[in-house]
Amino acid sequence: MAARSLLLIRGGCVVNDDSSQEADVLVEDGVVQAVGRHVLPPGDAPAGLRVLDAAGKLVLPGGIDTHTHMQFPFMGSRSVDDFHLGTKAALAGGTTMIMDFAIPHKGHSLIEAFDTWRSWADPKVCCDYSLHVAVTWWSDQGAKKMLALGITGPEGHELSRPEAVEAEATLRAVTIASAVNCPLYVVHVMSKSAAKVVADARRDGKVVYGEPIAAGLGTDGTHHWDKEWLHAAHHVMGPPLRPDPSTPDFLMNLLANDDLTTTGSDNCTFNSCQKALGKDDFTKIPNGVNGVEDRMSIIWEKGVHSGKMDENRFVAVTSTNAAKIFNLYPRKGRIAVGSDADIVIWDPKATRTISAKTHHQAVNFNIFEGMVCHGVPVVTISRGKVAYEAGVFSVSAGDGKFIPRKPFAEYVYKRIKQRDQTCIPTPVKREPYKGEVITWTSKEDSTHGTRKQAQP
Amino acid sequence: MAARSLLLIRGGCVVNDDSSQEADVLVEDGVVQAVGRHVLPPGDAPAGLRVLDAAGKLVLPGGIDTHTHMQFPFMGSRSVDDFHLGTKAALAGGTTMIMDFAIPHKGHSLIEAFDTWRSWADPKVCCDYSLHVAVTWWSDQGAKKMLALGITGPEGHELSRPEAVEAEATLRAVTIASAVNCPLYVVHVMSKSAAKVVADARRDGKVVYGEPIAAGLGTDGTHHWDKEWLHAAHHVMGPPLRPDPSTPDFLMNLLANDDLTTTGSDNCTFNSCQKALGKDDFTKIPNGVNGVEDRMSIIWEKGVHSGKMDENRFVAVTSTNAAKIFNLYPRKGRIAVGSDADIVIWDPKATRTISAKTHHQAVNFNIFEGMVCHGVPVVTISRGKVAYEAGVFSVSAGDGKFIPRKPFAEYVYKRIKQRDQTCIPTPVKREPYKGEVITWTSKEDSTHGTRKQAQP
Amino acid sequence: MAARSLLLIRGGCVVNDDSSQEADVLVEDGVVQAVGRHVLPPGDAPAGLRVLDAAGKLVLPGGIDTHTHMQFPFMGSRSVDDFHLGTKAALAGGTTMIMDFAIPHKGHSLIEAFDTWRSWADPKVCCDYSLHVAVTWWSDQGAKKMLALGITGPEGHELSRPEAVEAEATLRAVTIASAVNCPLYVVHVMSKSAAKVVADARRDGKVVYGEPIAAGLGTDGTHHWDKEWLHAAHHVMGPPLRPDPSTPDFLMNLLANDDLTTTGSDNCTFNSCQKALGKDDFTKIPNGVNGVEDRMSIIWEKGVHSGKMDENRFVAVTSTNAAKIFNLYPRKGRIAVGSDADIVIWDPKATRTISAKTHHQAVNFNIFEGMVCHGVPVVTISRGKVAYEAGVFSVSAGDGKFIPRKPFAEYVYKRIKQRDQTCIPTPVKREPYKGEVITWTSKEDSTHGTRKQAQP
Amino acid sequence: MAARSLLLIRGGCVVNDDSSQEADVLVEDGVVQAVGRHVLPPGDAPAGLRVLDAAGKLVLPGGIDTHTHMQFPFMGSRSVDDFHLGTKAALAGGTTMIMDFAIPHKGHSLIEAFDTWRSWADPKVCCDYSLHVAVTWWSDQGAKKMLALGITGPEGHELSRPEAVEAEATLRAVTIASAVNCPLYVVHVMSKSAAKVVADARRDGKVVYGEPIAAGLGTDGTHHWDKEWLHAAHHVMGPPLRPDPSTPDFLMNLLANDDLTTTGSDNCTFNSCQKALGKDDFTKIPNGVNGVEDRMSIIWEKGVHSGKMDENRFVAVTSTNAAKIFNLYPRKGRIAVGSDADIVIWDPKATRTISAKTHHQAVNFNIFEGMVCHGVPVVTISRGKVAYEAGVFSVSAGDGKFIPRKPFAEYVYKRIKQRDQTCIPTPVKREPYKGEVITWTSKEDSTHGTRKQAQP
Repeated sequence: MAARSLLLIRGGCVVNDDSSQEADVLVEDGVVQAVGRHVLPPGDAPAGLRVLDAAGKLVLPGGIDTHTHMQFPFMGSRSVDDFHLGTKAALAGGTTMIMDFAIPHKGHSLIEAFDTWRSWADPKVCCDYSLHVAVTWWSDQGAKKMLALGITGPEGHELSRPEAVEAEATLRAVTIASAVNCPLYVVHVMSKSAAKVVADARRDGKVVYGEPIAAGLGTDGTHHWDKEWLHAAHHVMGPPLRPDPSTPDFLMNLLANDDLTTTGSDNCTFNSCQKALGKDDFTKIPNGVNGVEDRMSIIWEKGVHSGKMDENRFVAVTSTNAAKIFNLYPRKGRIAVGSDADIVIWDPKATRTISAKTHHQAVNFNIFEGMVCHGVPVVTISRGKVAYEAGVFSVSAGDGKFIPRKPFAEYVYKRIKQRDQTCIPTPVKREPYKGEVITWTSKEDSTHGTRKQAQP
Repeated sequence: MAARSLLLIRGGCVVNDDSSQEADVLVEDGVVQAVGRHVLPPGDAPAGLRVLDAAGKLVLPGGIDTHTHMQFPFMGSRSVDDFHLGTKAALAGGTTMIMDFAIPHKGHSLIEAFDTWRSWADPKVCCDYSLHVAVTWWSDQGAKKMLALGITGPEGHELSRPEAVEAEATLRAVTIASAVNCPLYVVHVMSKSAAKVVADARRDGKVVYGEPIAAGLGTDGTHHWDKEWLHAAHHVMGPPLRPDPSTPDFLMNLLANDDLTTTGSDNCTFNSCQKALGKDDFTKIPNGVNGVEDRMSIIWEKGVHSGKMDENRFVAVTSTNAAKIFNLYPRKGRIAVGSDADIVIWDPKATRTISAKTHHQAVNFNIFEGMVCHGVPVVTISRGKVAYEAGVFSVSAGDGKFIPRKPFAEYVYKRIKQRDQTCIPTPVKREPYKGEVITWTSKEDSTHGTRKQAQP
Repeated sequence: MAARSLLLIRGGCVVNDDSSQEADVLVEDGVVQAVGRHVLPPGDAPAGLRVLDAAGKLVLPGGIDTHTHMQFPFMGSRSVDDFHLGTKAALAGGTTMIMDFAIPHKGHSLIEAFDTWRSWADPKVCCDYSLHVAVTWWSDQGAKKMLALGITGPEGHELSRPEAVEAEATLRAVTIASAVNCPLYVVHVMSKSAAKVVADARRDGKVVYGEPIAAGLGTDGTHHWDKEWLHAAHHVMGPPLRPDPSTPDFLMNLLANDDLTTTGSDNCTFNSCQKALGKDDFTKIPNGVNGVEDRMSIIWEKGVHSGKMDENRFVAVTSTNAAKIFNLYPRKGRIAVGSDADIVIWDPKATRTISAKTHHQAVNFNIFEGMVCHGVPVVTISRGKVAYEAGVFSVSAGDGKFIPRKPFAEYVYKRIKQRDQTCIPTPVKREPYKGEVITWTSKEDSTHGTRKQAQP
Repeated sequence: MAARSLLLIRGGCVVNDDSSQEADVLVEDGVVQAVGRHVLPPGDAPAGLRVLDAAGKLVLPGGIDTHTHMQFPFMGSRSVDDFHLGTKAALAGGTTMIMDFAIPHKGHSLIEAFDTWRSWADPKVCCDYSLHVAVTWWSDQGAKKMLALGITGPEGHELSRPEAVEAEATLRAVTIASAVNCPLYVVHVMSKSAAKVVADARRDGKVVYGEPIAAGLGTDGTHHWDKEWLHAAHHVMGPPLRPDPSTPDFLMNLLANDDLTTTGSDNCTFNSCQKALGKDDFTKIPNGVNGVEDRMSIIWEKGVHSGKMDENRFVAVTSTNAAKIFNLYPRKGRIAVGSDADIVIWDPKATRTISAKTHHQAVNFNIFEGMVCHGVPVVTISRGKVAYEAGVFSVSAGDGKFIPRKPFAEYVYKRIKQRDQTCIPTPVKREPYKGEVITWTSKEDSTHGTRKQAQP
């Protein structure tokens, strides 16, 4: 019989999305057993107990990255952060769960894709993960116009996917989803226009959630115009980072205000030699940027340190809301009795400088290079085990688990179900019409009679 | 040799879209020869001169209805106002030109449709006309959902074509048109949401024009819920009148403010026995309402009498702007030397009450029934000839002419052409990338290499 | 030594603002001791334990009404719901705490007003309460214009306080508060325009909260135009209910979406004979409506039953958010270990019909008369004591307590304090200017030299 | 008897705000006599006729600058462009009329100020002018806060007059003006926020006009942060240029779209040695920038050359709309028979580079330095006399005239007057209330009875 695994996080400030409290956290066998003061009786130091000192630190639910593409096959290459290195980097950044996308080949089944991704991830993951399934594609017509104009550089990427088109597509999705009373989750909201569509839809009572990503919150698309080709190419992703430099601030304000709800990274990393596939033609640049390691720091720096949100809202947008929407709450996204012990000890006063030289990801470029961030993850605990502490990993491939999720999260569907019952149009009660009705038989008219689709 | 046809409109206030002036108007052979004071020397009364006294009255350019469907074949029936009665009614209301839609059968050519419509109109019209050509259709999926819910009455018409869908379609059209630097003219803007899309696009610098119609400016979609089936059915048109009662006011404010630009009627009239085709199923109600006769009065009453616009803006939205957009200006839409003498003498102080009992249209229902309107057309002059005066017509079928229009009106296309030249993205000048480029040959990767459409 | 007071709420679904769970609630001496399954060991039934069966019911934090005026002296009269009857009615409606306004006479001190209100409330209250202090006044210039136009009826009340003015005042407050980095709480947001100002400010990152009230969420200002004078007069409050009938829906959407945050009632009730003071002059009608009893039901019906919000958001807007903003959380506004046992057992399937004939308030009119509401408070528990159960009160004057509140709630001020530190403009570092500087002495110029305030 | 002064502008394209036409313009004694082809019979070359060849050129109404401050006394100094040099520079730029501000000393009369300004201007002006009268002042509280923060440089100017305050003040003015049915003309709209307030007000049917200025359309407030103090100081004006670099584009879009209506320059120029008064304290920098000479070119370059507006809209915003609003139309702002011959021959294909070295203003700095502008005024005609041609002036001090203006321009007031008549609230007709009315006499209540201003 295995010994109990016991962990005590002592003296910190436990931060959930609704409030903060000075409290100790006792963890047993990967699950939170107690939150409060003096959770162990004085003098009670059971065998196997490990104590972490969190004095002066914050104790947060581990981050949930709602959007990654580890070892993603794309344009004949593969993103270089695989499920092993990618999830290690996640842990180093305070993220304890990722949600990756299983994307079938055109014409193949979703189940097949799901199985493929499971077979890739299960032996490699160092933190818990879950999967979205998706069918995605796009046309390359816009892009061709740019090439015809002689624009072959990375700036063509943004020019061929303009902000107005992102906003229009978002409104179309909102309109369709609302028409059939279906909730909508908009991944990678990259522009002010698209974010405004999401925010307006929410104001209008629609069940819509928007996910900005670390890249969009921490940098912008002016880099596509950088004089150095490689620098520009490393910022290419889809939808593109927008060149309006006020975009990150705008998105962060909406994230603080609950007009946007969760945060991902869309982490999909390619080394310079891969990006170079598009050196003469931007349409051949593999799409994707980093973010899985730095997401938490970016949001703390631009959101909390700037005064746009407090630490509770930080927890909401980095884990709690994702857990609620994807039906993992309160197992994930909260530090409470019974929750998984996915926990970060966070030093709000320390700073670190982001750099490709020091980050833990495989990729050889970092879009946040040189950014000084307040707020540093000191210790990351996954399922009750210290996985990362002060630069040192104690984690093995396969330590993470696939987390199945039940469909129809209450958080999302309570309103949907209620509307199905109460928001139904009712017919007007009328006396039947008793008057004359025209009849006719002429050839011409009957011909036209089939043209029901014509609109006067 | 024919005698000169001479007409003098004396003592009125000539109103154009830019200003008003006390002036006489001298017309010869259908064309304005002089505007000013004392356009005829004292004592000069040439043979054949007819003098109209306009003292205390306004002298306006005749209205241009940008949107009619005379004798339109629809769902096995035909709209009852044909090109003869319809254009007579137009004249009675102060409108001297209509623009009808030539709509081909599915799969037939636009030219064929054009010829068909010409053959219908030319022998019948009593005022000038021109033609749009169009391809239009819609799906009936929404509608089926309403029938499944047991909603068979006219209210189902509005419910199956909700406002949000109109707005979404408008934004889509705006986005596509703007992406290819093409001007956009949005017919029958029926809702606040769609009008806002148009207005926002204009604020954003896009070349977009919106056309509200008499029905949308003068009444609203609450009538679909009327207890009397026939009353409700007579309000069915597409896109539907919106049930929000603040819609007409909102549209008029935007029309006054140049966020909306022209006005039509979408006149497409069916008698009760035709509407009755849909007595058990709203999808079978022929779509369309009246408006060609009352458009000018509705806009005067709701726009000018209410204080939302002055008489100059009234001229702009009832004729001048249409003439500019459709390349007829200043031949039409202005009273100036050289213009066609399409003129209305308008009594701003008189009132009339709209009613199906007294109107000049063929249809047996009027959606504006009982509305008291200030502003009455006293005399309508078409091509220099008094066609209507105080209730009496002096006009024959075929008096009107087809007015061909050159494409690419300067008013619309000057900006478009300039943008084609100056709004072109330019590539960034860069040193070529000289670094390493990945190569590979594995089967799996080359397979994925074809999946260019996947979006991370 | 007093016996322990023990209460067990068994079998219900405990609803907090973040989640719902099937759980029992154990209360001892007015404080929640345990929340979970089997909170008492099998067979353990301590002496004095009372058990309430909540099977099939929801167990909610008691409501907090952020805005009441009990026994308020106004225009020579007093609102008829005093602190005794008013708080009893609150309990009957599921509200366990009210926040009243201590308003000094012009020129008197805030402390004096505070002491006066305490002396009125302490001996009478049946539930907990707290106090805001305020200085409020308005000019009656608008109103005079209406009287001059011959408008003496209650509709003049709305006409003299138009929506645009409410919105403008709200924007002014937002601008001023933001300029000095001060949070803003906007009481009684009554109009779409004002609500939009609040929502836009929040999108823009400002620390602003908006409070709609039961009246604004449940009815509208069309009643001012009612043909019966008394009916119209009973709807007079300030700022007025707005005549746009889409207002309540709009406000509820924003409340659901967290653009608006808390809910009050502005309960300030006058009987018909008091309202009649203004029978010939609307400016003499005492201002105020009911709401303290029905607020919870109105929000459930229009918010939850309609599908606009779920039961968790209901808790947020009826108690939790108020507790957070006014620094009472988690003592109030949450059912958790250590919280005050202010609890409502709520039957979401039952319905009741609101009527002045059956309500528990003193006032002889109810602005929600006849409204059928789903969602009925079955039992209301104040400080661990059953105060109201199925129509029967078990409560005495003075049972409630004044709840002092510490200033600078973390929920509100964390961001404010952070901004004080990080959002400070910094000067540009420059070489000093070394060039020529003009000097002069002429009389005229030196005269003008004092006119620093002139703006070119 | 003096000889007739005859001028023929031949072969150009006459551009008015509504349309363009190939036409000659015949001017006699300062007034347009004919516009058309062959306005002089073949062979008819009267004595004294001067012919200007305008082939390939545009013939525009001379510009009207709605907003200047020539020789303005400010902070002990005077703006260096006086009525002589300032109006000469205007002519060189294609502007033939300015509207200056007569601003009384605090406490002095408007008439006195008017007389003072007339006495300054009349002997000096080289083109026509008119006067606004104004009372303006501001508080310097904001500014003090910046100084306390150690910000003494020009950037403090913008920081102490933030955009939100401009927008709030604009909304307040709109709300007040609308409440009393008064038209509003907003001078120097400098920010996106304020422009949006104006545009929204117009959409809402309010009679509001917004005037952006050349500086705001052609440059932005990032210059306040320039490292060179003098460069930054020369951009200081009030309200400040805004640092958001997308502001000029936004304002130009609204100007193109008629959300903004006229254009001025707020020309108020100070030499470097005057600006230097504020070298240690930005509050002492004389406020003002140039623009009277370059306004037309800036709007052509950023508006017409960019494709945002066509040449007709250019005429509207540079002269016609100002003439209409300020009751000078069609005497000014239009080339038509009877109009003043204030005319510019404009070469749309030529370019010029703006520079303080070559401009005709007195001031030694130009905020548009180095800007290459398409569109060059080749000849400027004032009252029928060639005042400027290809760099050479033929004009004397006093050649210009004061143009009195009648109040209540029809263009503005038609709607206002109509609303005065038709937009009047009407009382509800009711049976009188016959029920009980409370009476009372208690001391306390009667005391409170006087507190009519308290708001529940």
